[in-house]
Amino acid sequence: MAAGDRGGDVAALFDRARAGDRGALARLLSFVERGGDAARSVAATAFGAAGAATTVGITGAPGAGKSTLTSALCRTMRADGHDIGVLAIDPSSPFTGGAILGDRVRMGEHVLDDGVFIRSMATRGHLGGLAVATPEAARVLDAVGYRWVLVETVGVGQVEVEVVAAADTTVVVVNPGWGDAVQANKAGLMEIADVFVVNKADRPGAAETRHDLEAMLSMGAGRSWAPPVIETVAATGQGVPELWSALGRHREYLVESGELERRRGRRADDELRNVVVARLVERAQALCDGPAWESARERLASRLADPWQVADDLLAGSSGTDEVTSP
Amino acid sequence: MAAGDRGGDVAALFDRARAGDRGALARLLSFVERGGDAARSVAATAFGAAGAATTVGITGAPGAGKSTLTSALCRTMRADGHDIGVLAIDPSSPFTGGAILGDRVRMGEHVLDDGVFIRSMATRGHLGGLAVATPEAARVLDAVGYRWVLVETVGVGQVEVEVVAAADTTVVVVNPGWGDAVQANKAGLMEIADVFVVNKADRPGAAETRHDLEAMLSMGAGRSWAPPVIETVAATGQGVPELWSALGRHREYLVESGELERRRGRRADDELRNVVVARLVERAQALCDGPAWESARERLASRLADPWQVADDLLAGSSGTDEVTSP
Repeated sequence: MAAGDRGGDVAALFDRARAGDRGALARLLSFVERGGDAARSVAATAFGAAGAATTVGITGAPGAGKSTLTSALCRTMRADGHDIGVLAIDPSSPFTGGAILGDRVRMGEHVLDDGVFIRSMATRGHLGGLAVATPEAARVLDAVGYRWVLVETVGVGQVEVEVVAAADTTVVVVNPGWGDAVQANKAGLMEIADVFVVNKADRPGAAETRHDLEAMLSMGAGRSWAPPVIETVAATGQGVPELWSALGRHREYLVESGELERRRGRRADDELRNVVVARLVERAQALCDGPAWESARERLASRLADPWQVADDLLAGSSGTDEVTSP
Repeated sequence: MAAGDRGGDVAALFDRARAGDRGALARLLSFVERGGDAARSVAATAFGAAGAATTVGITGAPGAGKSTLTSALCRTMRADGHDIGVLAIDPSSPFTGGAILGDRVRMGEHVLDDGVFIRSMATRGHLGGLAVATPEAARVLDAVGYRWVLVETVGVGQVEVEVVAAADTTVVVVNPGWGDAVQANKAGLMEIADVFVVNKADRPGAAETRHDLEAMLSMGAGRSWAPPVIETVAATGQGVPELWSALGRHREYLVESGELERRRGRRADDELRNVVVARLVERAQALCDGPAWESARERLASRLADPWQVADDLLAGSSGTDEVTSP
C-alpha cells in the first residue's frame, strides 16, 4: 500500500536524521509544513519518540532583536555542550520572505555548525496552520535528538502568541522605553511570559523598562514562579549567560513543581482540539472541490432541497470515503 | 416523534404568520437566531415558500444615518402601498444592546404599523453565525408574504459586508466629506454597492463627495449597471423618493438582464458552503463537549496514539450517531 511505503520512507528518514543527516531532517520538516498524509505519518512517528526536549518560545515586537538574541543564545548553549533546534515562525508569508531572510543572515554563523539546526517555518498547505504544524515540527526535532528547541516568532500576532505560549518556557523580548512594556501588556504577553528580556539594554531607559515590568509583574505576586527580568545586549552577548541560566532554573521549576506535566496536559488538549478542527476543515474543503458539489448545487438551484438538507446529504455521502475506521 | 411535533408547530406558526400574526413571525425568527433543530425546520419550510421578495442591504459606517434612512425609506414605501420586513444586524452583541436600541427608537413611528415588521438580529447560538442566519431570516419574511426585505447593518465589519453583499440590491450610505468615500473604498464597499447614498446632504461637502464617488465609479465603467449616487437628508425625507425609485430601477435591471438569476445562483453556492462549515463546526463542538473527549485525552496523555489518530477516532466514533442518512 502507498501509505505503507510512505511510512517506510518516513521511518528511514527518521533513522538518517537521528544519525545526523540534516537533509533528511529538512525533508521531514517539509512534510510537516505541507500537511496531508505524509505529515500525518511524520507526526505519528515523532509523537512516539518525542518528550525529552525542552521547548523555549521567544517572542516580542518586530525589531526587538529576537533573532540576534536567539543567535547569541545558541552560541552560549553550544559553549555549554548542547545541540539546538531553532524554528523561526513566519505565518504572514507562504514562502521565506525578505524580512526573515535578513534575520537569517545574522544567524549565518551557525550555518556550518552541525550542533545548531535552523529552520524557517511557514505553512504550505497545512490546513491546521502553524498552530498545528509548529508543535509537530518541534516534536520532529525532539524525536531526532535535540534536547533544546527554540521557537522564535517574527511578529506578535494572535497566531504567534498562541504558538509561543505552547512552549515549555516562554521568553518575551522588549526594548528600553515605556512603550514596549505597555505594548507587551496589551498584546497579552504579560500572561504568557516566564522570562522577560530587556534587549538593547545599553540604550537609555533600560532600567526604567525593567522597573516597569517588575511593577506590572508584582501585581501577579503569589504565583509560584516569579518571571525574572534580564537585561541583555544580544549584539555583544552581554547578559545572555544570565538568560541561559534563567532558562535552566525555569526548567527545574517546571519539573519539580509538577507544572511541566500540567502544562503539557493542557497543551495536549489544545492540540487535539486544533487537529479535530483541521480535520473537519479538510473535509469541508474536499467536499467543496469534489464531484458531489455540482449535483448538490443543482438540487439547491432547482429548490429540490433546502441548504441544510443538501449540506447534510453532502456530508453523509462523503463520510463513507474519507472517514478513518475505528481503532 | 419530537421532530415531527416541532415540524407541526413550525407549519402552524407559518400559517398564523401569513395571516398577519406578528407574534408567530417573531417566534419563527427567534428559532432561526437560536439555531439547532427548530431553525432547520423553519429554514426548510421557508425555503420551499420563498423566492418572490426583493432583499435590499443597507450598510455604511456607524453614524452615517442608516437607521434614519431605513425609517424614511419605509415611510416612502408604505405610502406606495408596500409591506416591508426590516432586519437590523448586530453581530457584536449577543443581545440587543444600547446602540441599536437607540437606533430602534428612531424607527418607533413604525412600531404600531402592521405594514412594517422590524426585527433586530443577533445570533444566539446559531453556529453558522449571521452569515447563515440572516438569509434564513430574510427567507422567513419572504415566505410569510413580505415582498421587500431591508437588511440594515450597524457597522461595516467583515461579517456585515458579507451579509449585505448577499442581498439582491446593496445600498452603501456615506456622509459628506472626502474621508467617507475613501473609507468606503477601503472597506471594500465600492465593489458591492449597487446604489450609493450621500446622506446628511445638507451639510457642506455633499457635492464633492458625490463627485468623488462618481469619479471612483467611473473607473469601473463599462459595467452594465452604473451605480447611481443619490443625495438624501433622511431626517427630513429629502431625496428618499429618489432612492426608492433607484431601488425599483435596479430591481428591473436585475430581472431583465438575467443578473438576478446569476446572483442568486452565486449566493446559493456561498450559502451551501457556509452551511457545510456550520454543520462541521457543530460536530467539532459536540465532540469537544461529549463523553468521548475524556477518554480521547487520556489515550493522548498516555501516548497510546498521536493527536491525528485520536482526532480521527473521535470523528469516526461520532459519525454513527450524528450523521444524517442518505436521501
